[in-house]
Amino acid sequence: MSGSSAGGPGQLESGRFHVPTPAFLFDLDGTLVDSVYQHVAAWQEALTACGIPLSVWRIHRRIGMSGGLFLSALQRETGVTLDAETLTRLSTLHREGYLSRAGSVVPLPGARELLRALSDHEAPFAIATSSAQKVAEVGLALLELPDHVPVVTRDLVERAKPDPHLFLAAAERLHVGPARAFVVGDSIWDLLAAQRAGALGIGLLSGGYGPEELQAAGAYRVYQDPADLLAHLEEVGVRPAS
Amino acid sequence: MSGSSAGGPGQLESGRFHVPTPAFLFDLDGTLVDSVYQHVAAWQEALTACGIPLSVWRIHRRIGMSGGLFLSALQRETGVTLDAETLTRLSTLHREGYLSRAGSVVPLPGARELLRALSDHEAPFAIATSSAQKVAEVGLALLELPDHVPVVTRDLVERAKPDPHLFLAAAERLHVGPARAFVVGDSIWDLLAAQRAGALGIGLLSGGYGPEELQAAGAYRVYQDPADLLAHLEEVGVRPAS
Repeated sequence: MSGSSAGGPGQLESGRFHVPTPAFLFDLDGTLVDSVYQHVAAWQEALTACGIPLSVWRIHRRIGMSGGLFLSALQRETGVTLDAETLTRLSTLHREGYLSRAGSVVPLPGARELLRALSDHEAPFAIATSSAQKVAEVGLALLELPDHVPVVTRDLVERAKPDPHLFLAAAERLHVGPARAFVVGDSIWDLLAAQRAGALGIGLLSGGYGPEELQAAGAYRVYQDPADLLAHLEEVGVRPAS
Repeated sequence: MSGSSAGGPGQLESGRFHVPTPAFLFDLDGTLVDSVYQHVAAWQEALTACGIPLSVWRIHRRIGMSGGLFLSALQRETGVTLDAETLTRLSTLHREGYLSRAGSVVPLPGARELLRALSDHEAPFAIATSSAQKVAEVGLALLELPDHVPVVTRDLVERAKPDPHLFLAAAERLHVGPARAFVVGDSIWDLLAAQRAGALGIGLLSGGYGPEELQAAGAYRVYQDPADLLAHLEEVGVRPAS
């Protein structure tokens, strides 16, 4: 079977490959809202209150992963076994510490504009965060999300990042396969989860990781922040309005 | 002239190359004390108070450089020109915000032990920080430094990092040439200044940069924190006690 019509010899007919506009599965903290450092400070405060010393950069590198996995890794790295009461207290103190800092959390540059542009271009998108609903609400409230946008929080899935469940659930709610989706996140946990979900990952520097760390975790592309991704949307298959 | 004595044919006589024990020029914040994230929070608070929006990760990446250069870069990046009064207010608010967080600053793991080991091995060392004396005192007070250790602060030199003046002054006070010294720092500004001073740089991850960022800025070696450097001291020419 050979090409025909307007094209030259050997050209395939138009429409033979149907590549739909991609879907976008967004992380929240550090990706759409500038809240990573407030999470870091809240964990540091909680750990100090429980008498557990951990350097702050090590906390930073764990933000975005499941809180349960963070605490498991913490016990392994420090060699300290924490009882159930202390684990509950740490989670509570972190939540309270973060909520007390909520007033300083703002949308990242371009976040709202990016989501509006995706709506305009009919690129479906959803939010998938390792945070519980109560904590996620701080960031969600800043984004002016349309009601139809799916939001998958920690409470709704069996496992959080770097397991793929959050992104798989978000894709399901958009009625798209994960292979049609880009995962957009600021942490290596997002990008590792993207790979396990079978999606390509887009890394943003706005959570404080270096670009090479995100690339090493499998990022297909790395941008500075939502504004920078918006400025390069055609690179990831979203066509400008025509 | 050929070799002789105990060695085989062609071996050079012992002592022909005199390679002294290296000197160490340490940055302070993020390198010996865990204070980077407090500086980040203090700058964020100061900028917000002055109505200047800047993503927190961009603040983080500027910590360790001269405050004056930070504010110059800020104006260039945001396109906002700040008057002298605002610049003074920003500096004051940052200092006050940092000092109000001083209670949560602790030595990094292995910092005191590393400095003690260098003293034991007669490897000279000094501290060189872009902070003013008043701000540096928070970290210095945690380190139990012997009186003879030179400390060079922002107040004492014409220019701070990434200019080489701080490290050149620190080497001078140790009466060593910079080529004999390792600069130890957590930020790319330390490593860039090290290159300009003619010293090799050792990067530590404890300020929150990724290893590749430090390598790209010229790090000869990268370790996690002072404890990790201490565990590998023989790699940088300090021999274990024998």
